[in-house]
Amino acid sequence: MKVRVGIIGATGYTAYEAIRLLLRHPHVEITAVTSRQDEGLPIASVHPQLTSRLDLKLSVFDVDQFAKQCDVAFCCLPHGASAETVKLLRDADCTVIDFSADFRLSCVAEYENWYGVKHPWPEQIGRVAYGLPELFADQIRDADLIANPGCYPTSAIMPLAPLIKAGAIQTSDIIVDSKSGVSGAGRTPKLGTLYCETNESIAPYAIGSHRHQPEMDDIIDRFSGSRTNVLFTPHLTPMDRGILSTIYVRPQEADADRVREIWQAMYGDSPFVRIVDHIPSTKHVSGTNFVDLTVRPAGDRLVLVAAIDNLIKGASGAAVQNLNCIYGWDQTLGLMN
Amino acid sequence: MKVRVGIIGATGYTAYEAIRLLLRHPHVEITAVTSRQDEGLPIASVHPQLTSRLDLKLSVFDVDQFAKQCDVAFCCLPHGASAETVKLLRDADCTVIDFSADFRLSCVAEYENWYGVKHPWPEQIGRVAYGLPELFADQIRDADLIANPGCYPTSAIMPLAPLIKAGAIQTSDIIVDSKSGVSGAGRTPKLGTLYCETNESIAPYAIGSHRHQPEMDDIIDRFSGSRTNVLFTPHLTPMDRGILSTIYVRPQEADADRVREIWQAMYGDSPFVRIVDHIPSTKHVSGTNFVDLTVRPAGDRLVLVAAIDNLIKGASGAAVQNLNCIYGWDQTLGLMN
Amino acid sequence: MKVRVGIIGATGYTAYEAIRLLLRHPHVEITAVTSRQDEGLPIASVHPQLTSRLDLKLSVFDVDQFAKQCDVAFCCLPHGASAETVKLLRDADCTVIDFSADFRLSCVAEYENWYGVKHPWPEQIGRVAYGLPELFADQIRDADLIANPGCYPTSAIMPLAPLIKAGAIQTSDIIVDSKSGVSGAGRTPKLGTLYCETNESIAPYAIGSHRHQPEMDDIIDRFSGSRTNVLFTPHLTPMDRGILSTIYVRPQEADADRVREIWQAMYGDSPFVRIVDHIPSTKHVSGTNFVDLTVRPAGDRLVLVAAIDNLIKGASGAAVQNLNCIYGWDQTLGLMN
Amino acid sequence: MKVRVGIIGATGYTAYEAIRLLLRHPHVEITAVTSRQDEGLPIASVHPQLTSRLDLKLSVFDVDQFAKQCDVAFCCLPHGASAETVKLLRDADCTVIDFSADFRLSCVAEYENWYGVKHPWPEQIGRVAYGLPELFADQIRDADLIANPGCYPTSAIMPLAPLIKAGAIQTSDIIVDSKSGVSGAGRTPKLGTLYCETNESIAPYAIGSHRHQPEMDDIIDRFSGSRTNVLFTPHLTPMDRGILSTIYVRPQEADADRVREIWQAMYGDSPFVRIVDHIPSTKHVSGTNFVDLTVRPAGDRLVLVAAIDNLIKGASGAAVQNLNCIYGWDQTLGLMN
Repeated sequence: MKVRVGIIGATGYTAYEAIRLLLRHPHVEITAVTSRQDEGLPIASVHPQLTSRLDLKLSVFDVDQFAKQCDVAFCCLPHGASAETVKLLRDADCTVIDFSADFRLSCVAEYENWYGVKHPWPEQIGRVAYGLPELFADQIRDADLIANPGCYPTSAIMPLAPLIKAGAIQTSDIIVDSKSGVSGAGRTPKLGTLYCETNESIAPYAIGSHRHQPEMDDIIDRFSGSRTNVLFTPHLTPMDRGILSTIYVRPQEADADRVREIWQAMYGDSPFVRIVDHIPSTKHVSGTNFVDLTVRPAGDRLVLVAAIDNLIKGASGAAVQNLNCIYGWDQTLGLMN
Repeated sequence: MKVRVGIIGATGYTAYEAIRLLLRHPHVEITAVTSRQDEGLPIASVHPQLTSRLDLKLSVFDVDQFAKQCDVAFCCLPHGASAETVKLLRDADCTVIDFSADFRLSCVAEYENWYGVKHPWPEQIGRVAYGLPELFADQIRDADLIANPGCYPTSAIMPLAPLIKAGAIQTSDIIVDSKSGVSGAGRTPKLGTLYCETNESIAPYAIGSHRHQPEMDDIIDRFSGSRTNVLFTPHLTPMDRGILSTIYVRPQEADADRVREIWQAMYGDSPFVRIVDHIPSTKHVSGTNFVDLTVRPAGDRLVLVAAIDNLIKGASGAAVQNLNCIYGWDQTLGLMN
Repeated sequence: MKVRVGIIGATGYTAYEAIRLLLRHPHVEITAVTSRQDEGLPIASVHPQLTSRLDLKLSVFDVDQFAKQCDVAFCCLPHGASAETVKLLRDADCTVIDFSADFRLSCVAEYENWYGVKHPWPEQIGRVAYGLPELFADQIRDADLIANPGCYPTSAIMPLAPLIKAGAIQTSDIIVDSKSGVSGAGRTPKLGTLYCETNESIAPYAIGSHRHQPEMDDIIDRFSGSRTNVLFTPHLTPMDRGILSTIYVRPQEADADRVREIWQAMYGDSPFVRIVDHIPSTKHVSGTNFVDLTVRPAGDRLVLVAAIDNLIKGASGAAVQNLNCIYGWDQTLGLMN
Repeated sequence: MKVRVGIIGATGYTAYEAIRLLLRHPHVEITAVTSRQDEGLPIASVHPQLTSRLDLKLSVFDVDQFAKQCDVAFCCLPHGASAETVKLLRDADCTVIDFSADFRLSCVAEYENWYGVKHPWPEQIGRVAYGLPELFADQIRDADLIANPGCYPTSAIMPLAPLIKAGAIQTSDIIVDSKSGVSGAGRTPKLGTLYCETNESIAPYAIGSHRHQPEMDDIIDRFSGSRTNVLFTPHLTPMDRGILSTIYVRPQEADADRVREIWQAMYGDSPFVRIVDHIPSTKHVSGTNFVDLTVRPAGDRLVLVAAIDNLIKGASGAAVQNLNCIYGWDQTLGLMN
C-alpha cells in the first residue's frame, strides 16, 4: 500500500516541484492539495504542467479531513502560519515535513528576533530534526516532524559543516557569497520579481541581514561547539533556479587536498554529494538533487564552491529525500532525474 | 527657452523611457512627473536609473498646477482614465501626446466595444492625429493632441500601409504573428509577468482577440479605402524589449523587389526606417527608434518582417518623434542612441 | 537482461538528453558512447551533469566493437555521415534509431535536392518507419531502423496530420510559424548561437527554405494523398529549449470543437498528447515528452497551437518512446519527468 | 574640425559600443575601421545595428594609411598583438587608447608572468596613464597613450582606491567577488559562451588566478604605498552586460558613514560616480557610463557594492571619457544615454 502524501499550500513553485517528484515516486500517492485562495480549482489550472498527471482539486485545509486522507504532510506555508498548522497535524498524528523556517533554529528567542513573530509552538524548538540526511540521518530516521532546510543554508552548511567538525577552518572568518535564481523569491506577484526587473540584472540584497544567516550559524554551531558568525550576502540572479555559493574560509593547517579528504570521509556514501575537480555551475545540478562541491586555494584562503538546485536539494528534493529516510526507503527514490 | 514637458503616470516602463530620451533632448526640460500611488517620492526612488539625472518628486496630477508647469503632456495613463485627463489638459491648452488607446480608433462604437468602457470624450474621435510621422506627418505637424500608436500596430502598419496603398497585396488575407518582450505588459505586478513564469517560455495570447487588431485594421483602412481584417496573434517572448512581427501576405502582381520599391518610395527620406536585405532581429533595433523591414518570397505568399523596440519606436521614441514634428525640429532630436 | 544501447556522436545536447533519459529507464543499460573529436575522455568531462552517473569513456566508432557492445544504436551524427554509419550498423544487425534527417523523406531526389549530398543508402528511402508512435505505431513496432523525426516537424505534424486525414482543413493554405529555443541549433560553437547574439533577441531564419519544410510536407502527404505545401517560418528564441508552433489553417466545414474531436479520436489513448483548453506555453512541457495542443477560431481561419520540448519529444524523448515501442514496453518508460 | 578616430579590431562587442558612442559625439568623426578577418566587408554586415549609421568598409590595418586617416586610435586588439600595433601608431604620432592589458601594469616581469608573452615594448611600462579619469585625471590630460582599464578592475578600484588612500580599510584582507555578463568574454565563438551553456547558469572561473587580479593590486598599490593582495573571484552570469562587484573589507576605525564621506570627497565632482543609499543592480547602470556605489556594515566587516556596465564604464565608455579628457572637452560628451 502506498504512503499517502498531502501538500498544504500547493500553489507555489516548491509545491509544484514536490508534486512533480512525488508523481514519479513508486511508493507514494498524492491524496490532497490545499490552498485557501484557489479553493475548488483543479490543481492543473494553477500548475498547467500537471494537466493529465494529477487529477485533484484544491481544498481549504481542514485538519480532520486532511488526517483521514494523508499519512504525511508536506507543509508549504509561510513562517508563523506553518507552525500553527504543523501543531494541528502533529496532534492528528500526521508525519510532517515543514518547508518553513519555523522549526529550524534551536532557540526560540533567536527565532522571534529574526522572524518578528511569537512562535506558535515553542516547546518543539530544539527537538525537531533538521532535514539534511547527509548530516543528521540518525535524527531523521525516527522523526515524525522534520524542519526542511532553507535553500541558502543547504548550499553553505553542506560544504562547511564537515570542515568545521574536523577543525580544518577558522569559525570566525567565513564569508558566504550566494547567487540564487528568482524562484527562491516565491510565486506571489511583486515588483521585485517581475521579469523586466530581474532579467539582465544582478544585485545583492539583505546584506548581512538575511534570515538564512542565523540558520547557517545555528546548524554549523552544532559541529563547532562554539559560536560561528557567518557573513552572508545573497544575490538575485537572472535565472529560474539554482544556487551557487562561493565561500571564503581561512584554513587551519589544511589545504585543498585535506578539504577533499574530509568531504570524502563525510559524504563518500551519500548518493547526492559530488566532490568534483572542475568548477561546478548551477546548470550542472539543475533539475537534480545533487550538491556539487569543489575547493580552490587562493592566497592564504580557501574558496569553497557549492552548487544546488534551490527548488530540489534546496527544498522539495530534500523533502522527498527526508521522506525516503523516514520510511527506510532508498534515498534516491523519486529523485533521479 | 526650452519646451517644458510633464509626464503623467510616470512610474511605468514607457514613462521611464520617455524621461530617459527627453533628458538628452536639447530643446526640452522635464518639469513635472505625476503618480497617484507614489506621491511625494523622488522619481529616482521609483526609477533608480534616474539617480543624479532628474531631481523631481512625484506629485498627484492637478490640471491647473500642471498647466502652469508644462507646455506639453506625455500622458501615460490607462485607457478610459487617459481620455478624461486628456480633456482636462486640452481645456487648459496643454499640447498632449496620449500613450493610451483612447484616441486611436476612428469609431466610437468600435472603441466602446473593444475596450468595454463608455468613451469620455467621443466628440474627439476621428479628429486626432495618429502618431506615425512616417505616414501622417501632415496631421501631426499642426496637432495639439496626438494618439501615440500601439506597439504591435506600429510593427504591422509600417510594413503594410504602403503596400496596401499601392494595391500590391490583398487586404483580405493578412496574418500578423508578433513576438513581444515582456515590458509590453507593463510594470504592475501580475503572476503572468513574473520572471519565473515568462523566462524560458514562449506562448501566444489573445489569439484573434487582442485590442491592437482593430487598431491595425482601422489605420490600414485609411490606405485601402475598404475593410481589412488582419488576423493578429501576439506572443509573450522571454526578453525585456522588442517586437518582431512576421507578416504573411498574398501579393497582387507584386514580388519582393516591388515591395522594396514601394517601401523605398514611401520611407526613403525617413530617418528611422531601414529597408534591409538581411533578416532583422529585435536586437538590431534594441534601444533605438528604428523600424527594420525586410521581405522574403515563400511559395505564393510574401513574408514581411518588421523589428522595433516596443518601448522606443513602439511607445516613447514615437512620442518624442511626434514632439519633434509638432515643434518643427529635426525628427531625430533626442532619438539617436 | 537489459537492452544495451550505445550513443554515436555523444557530445551534443540531444545525446546528453538521451543519456539522461536512458539512465532512468528500467530495462536499458548504456554500454557505449562515441565521439571522434573527444576520444578517450570520460563522458562526464564533456557533460559534467553526468558526473557520478555514467562511468564511460568516449571511443571512436568502430562498427565491429560497437555491435558487440550494443543491441541498439542511437545515432546522433550529422546528415550524410549518419546514413553511412547506419548502413554499417544495420549490416551488423544493430537496431538503429537515427536522429538525422537521412531516412525521413520518402523520395531520394527530394532528399538530395534539399540536403545537397548524394544519399549514401538510397535503397532504404521509403522503407523506414517515421518515429512518431502516435501516428505510425504499426510500422515502428516491427522496425529495426527508425527515422527519428525533426523537432519542428513533430510540432507541426502532430496537430495537422489528424485534421488532414479527416479532411477538416484545406491542404493548400497552411502556415506554420515556429519559435524554437537555441539548443535546436546544436552545440558546435558558432557566432549565431553565442549568448550575446541570441539573448534579448528574436528573429526568423530560413524563411520558406528550411529543410524541415519538405519533411512536414512529406509526412502530411501520407495522410492527405495529395501534395501539401506548408509555408514554414522558424524563429530563434532566447531560451534553452522548447518549440511553440502557431499554425494558421483554413477549415473545411469544421470548427474548433470538431478539431478537438478529431484530435481526441486520434490521440485519446496516447499518453503524451494533451488536448488542452488553455493556451500552451513551452514551459508547460519543458523537460517532458508531452505535446500540448489547443485550437482557437480567428475570423475565417483556425489557429492551432502546439508546444513541445525540442530536445525531448522533438528528439531524445521520441527516440526513447520509439525504443519502448520496438521492444513492446510501456511507452512511458524512462519518460515521465 | 572634428577629431578623426579609427577603430582597430572593429568586429567585437567593445568595438561596436565604441562606435555607437562615438557616433553621437559632437566633436568626433569615425574615419577607419579595421579587421584582418573581415576585410572588405561593410561594418554594418558585421554589426547590423550600424545599418544606415556608419558607411565604412573594414580594411586591414596599415599604419601609414591609418595615420593619414586618423588622429586617434581606439585599439581593440588582443594583448601582445596590441602592444606591437600601439608602438607603430605612436611612432606615426597617433594618439592611442589601448583597450588591451598591455600597458596597464607597472612591472614588465609581472606582465610577462601573468600574460605568458614577452612584452613587445617594455620601455613604455610604467609610463602610461591608466585610464580612470576619476583617479588619474592629471596623467590623462597630457597623455598620448592611455591604458584603458579592465572591466573587473574598474569595478573594484573605483570603490577601493579612495578608502585605501585614506587608510580606512586594511590592505591585507580584501575579497572581490564579481559577477559579469557574458559580453565580457568576447565575440569569438567558444563552447563556454554559447547560449545554452551560459543561460540559466552561474559559475565562478579562474578563482584566485584571473589576470585582472594583478591589475587591481597594481593600481591600488599606487594609493597604499604597500603591497595589496586582493582575492578576486569572477563569475560568469547569464546576462549580456554588467558587472556587479561585492567587496568584503575590514575597516580601520571607519564605518559606513565614513566610507561615504571619503567617496564623496573623492568623487563629489565626478559626473559618472553615484554614491547611492539603495543597493545598486547592474540594470541601474546598463547602457550608461555610471559607477553606482554603496556600502553596508556586516559584523566586523564592511561590504562595498559597485555596479557598472562592463562594455561602457568597463571599456568603451571609459575610452570616450578618456578621449574627452585628452581634448579638454566636457567629460560627458557622447556619454549620456
